[in-house]
Amino acid sequence: MAAQLAQQKAKYAELIVRAGLNLQPGQRLQIAGSAIAGVDPHLAPFVRLIAAAAYRAGALLVDVIWDDPRLLPIRLREAAPETLGQHSDWPIAARQEFLDKGGAFLGILAGDPDLLSGIDPKLVSAVVNPLLEAVRPVTARIEANAANWCVASAPIPSWAAKVFPSLPPAKREGRLWEVILQLCRADQPDPVALWLSLGKDLASRAAHLNARQYSSLTFKGPGTDLTVGLPPRHVWLGGQNRAKNGVVFLPNIPTEEVYTLPHRSRVDGSVQSTKPLNLFGSTIEGFRLVFRDGKVTEFAARKGEAHLRELIETHEGASRLGEVALVPASSPISKLGIVLWDVLFDENAASHLALGGAYRDSLKGGGEISEEEFAEAGGNASAVHVDFMIGSSEVDVDGVTAQGTLDPIMRKGEWAFNM
Amino acid sequence: MAAQLAQQKAKYAELIVRAGLNLQPGQRLQIAGSAIAGVDPHLAPFVRLIAAAAYRAGALLVDVIWDDPRLLPIRLREAAPETLGQHSDWPIAARQEFLDKGGAFLGILAGDPDLLSGIDPKLVSAVVNPLLEAVRPVTARIEANAANWCVASAPIPSWAAKVFPSLPPAKREGRLWEVILQLCRADQPDPVALWLSLGKDLASRAAHLNARQYSSLTFKGPGTDLTVGLPPRHVWLGGQNRAKNGVVFLPNIPTEEVYTLPHRSRVDGSVQSTKPLNLFGSTIEGFRLVFRDGKVTEFAARKGEAHLRELIETHEGASRLGEVALVPASSPISKLGIVLWDVLFDENAASHLALGGAYRDSLKGGGEISEEEFAEAGGNASAVHVDFMIGSSEVDVDGVTAQGTLDPIMRKGEWAFNM
Repeated sequence: MAAQLAQQKAKYAELIVRAGLNLQPGQRLQIAGSAIAGVDPHLAPFVRLIAAAAYRAGALLVDVIWDDPRLLPIRLREAAPETLGQHSDWPIAARQEFLDKGGAFLGILAGDPDLLSGIDPKLVSAVVNPLLEAVRPVTARIEANAANWCVASAPIPSWAAKVFPSLPPAKREGRLWEVILQLCRADQPDPVALWLSLGKDLASRAAHLNARQYSSLTFKGPGTDLTVGLPPRHVWLGGQNRAKNGVVFLPNIPTEEVYTLPHRSRVDGSVQSTKPLNLFGSTIEGFRLVFRDGKVTEFAARKGEAHLRELIETHEGASRLGEVALVPASSPISKLGIVLWDVLFDENAASHLALGGAYRDSLKGGGEISEEEFAEAGGNASAVHVDFMIGSSEVDVDGVTAQGTLDPIMRKGEWAFNM
Repeated sequence: MAAQLAQQKAKYAELIVRAGLNLQPGQRLQIAGSAIAGVDPHLAPFVRLIAAAAYRAGALLVDVIWDDPRLLPIRLREAAPETLGQHSDWPIAARQEFLDKGGAFLGILAGDPDLLSGIDPKLVSAVVNPLLEAVRPVTARIEANAANWCVASAPIPSWAAKVFPSLPPAKREGRLWEVILQLCRADQPDPVALWLSLGKDLASRAAHLNARQYSSLTFKGPGTDLTVGLPPRHVWLGGQNRAKNGVVFLPNIPTEEVYTLPHRSRVDGSVQSTKPLNLFGSTIEGFRLVFRDGKVTEFAARKGEAHLRELIETHEGASRLGEVALVPASSPISKLGIVLWDVLFDENAASHLALGGAYRDSLKGGGEISEEEFAEAGGNASAVHVDFMIGSSEVDVDGVTAQGTLDPIMRKGEWAFNM
């Protein structure tokens, strides 16, 4: 079993390099945790597998930005509150350096969902908000596909403990590895070929929706009655992307979604979350949002409401939507029936929305226009982008045509149109 | 025992922050592994203790540059040889950023002495040499005491295995912790006060030698008959330093040495190493060097001769001396009677020399003159600085006065003068 796991981890590393990044011979690769975090030191053994795969694929240089997430709660508890806005410039310069040199970017998400539990959300914001603002030029370049990039994930003990609290501690991390490897199809004979095929399926579904150019979507289910306006020239995306360097890549492994641009001022009604959310090391559960003219006008959460308030009230643009995504309730992650407390997995278990910034490429020509023009076209701007799940087997989705008629898109959480 | 160890580690962290760095309220702190390496990810728990101590001491921001050393052998084995000269600019910019902002610098040395064993030294040089050259402006600023800095150490498993091969694997790291904590006096009631006092003792010894202004030193022992010329205005240093920001700090914990500037062209005779050496992840043992007019003219090693050759023949300045240091054979590290395979400890177990660059502050006014003037005064310049041990209880050291008479400085490895 241990040998099988080791073999699958190596296959997963290859998969990330070959199918996710599609790393080119002679290309640099930078590995981090996200745009604002480094890789958790616990993941060193897995990063070594990725580095080996990257060098075998001809990488010019593999560079890793590490970060110990557990230094943050120490800082929040021990440092003088007025110093919390201080941050180093070099982690941002490091990312710019690699983008300037045409490097590919890999983010390995892994977080303790309870890292900052019990800490005043205002203190968290004092550290995180300036950092998110400072890194915006970098995230903009990555989201504009300046180079091929990918986001993947690997277990750390605190995260595994949150997902499998009832397993014996020594079994949790191994179990989370098994689940991740399975969801990423690293247990299959040829996962690279499989992902190329899955990517094509998602692209066809996106192409079908693009051809329809619905003026809005409606979501109906328990606690949910929401209309999400779609701007003219919105683009549905899914599966593979093409970077400006011409490289075709898979930005997320796993991915099960197709997504597009919601209109920043045409969202109305109420929506009930169907899965909990991990937000900067704190959890938010059982929440409900009411939108009017695109803006959140009311919100409530069974747990973590203060964190939800901090998000919505302190970040410009976090009270409007930046993404609407469709995922069938029968997706492999959803069928697993557990909350994985990691956006990469949970967002691929259910249809979802995101509060915050929109992707430029979800509007036709969105990469070539100014911020003002993008906003005018309906695109929201923000330093944050927080996905939250609203889909389930009880939710129906319809597309509203230009003529005002309704086309079924999902029924009971499953695709309701043929291609 | 585990609780005691945990308590001593916390005291050690405090000691590094208070007595080593003497970190000032409102000062930034950057932690790395060395000028060219980040902290080993395995040391995350210890770095958290240091960060907590630093924030309690009023740090504005604690920044850590991490680095997984085990990525280097992977690169050397898997990457195309012609790519090995590539390196990222950001780790150097990161250090410059903190120096520019007046930050203190802590290096936590910890290395696997056999990390690169079996790998062609030419490949190692191809990676390491350009990096050492690129980082020279940073090392120059640190060595010129641009800010308060300190080098300390903490165990990693591969290193502990090398030091205690005969202990059961599960006991090795704990044992190395015990030894380090003992050598750093973290097991004493008030190690901060103790180090201030030890620092003063070393400073008095340096003051005595400064007053004598010997024209050279002679070392005599088994296999060793060496004269090391000392330039006019050479300065003996030991214990505490004063940074340009006025902060008095202890640059090494532990430290047992007084050291000064050898003349780059006035070293003659032969010298036998008395301890093995860990050089960029490879080991060199039982070696002998012959000097003429300051330059190595012959060398041989029982083990690792190719690495010694690579050092001496590929680095400018590595065939001349940059430091001569005196340490009694009865120093606590020496009395322990084991090789610690880490320069911070082994150099404080025996009198030693260093091949490579000299410290500017070991010449009076050395910080204010040009590179050419420093060389003219007898100071060697190089991107490397490799300490090697030549002292033992069988080695005598004499100071040669301007009049050509000999003063005993050490007899059988012990101090032979009173202060």
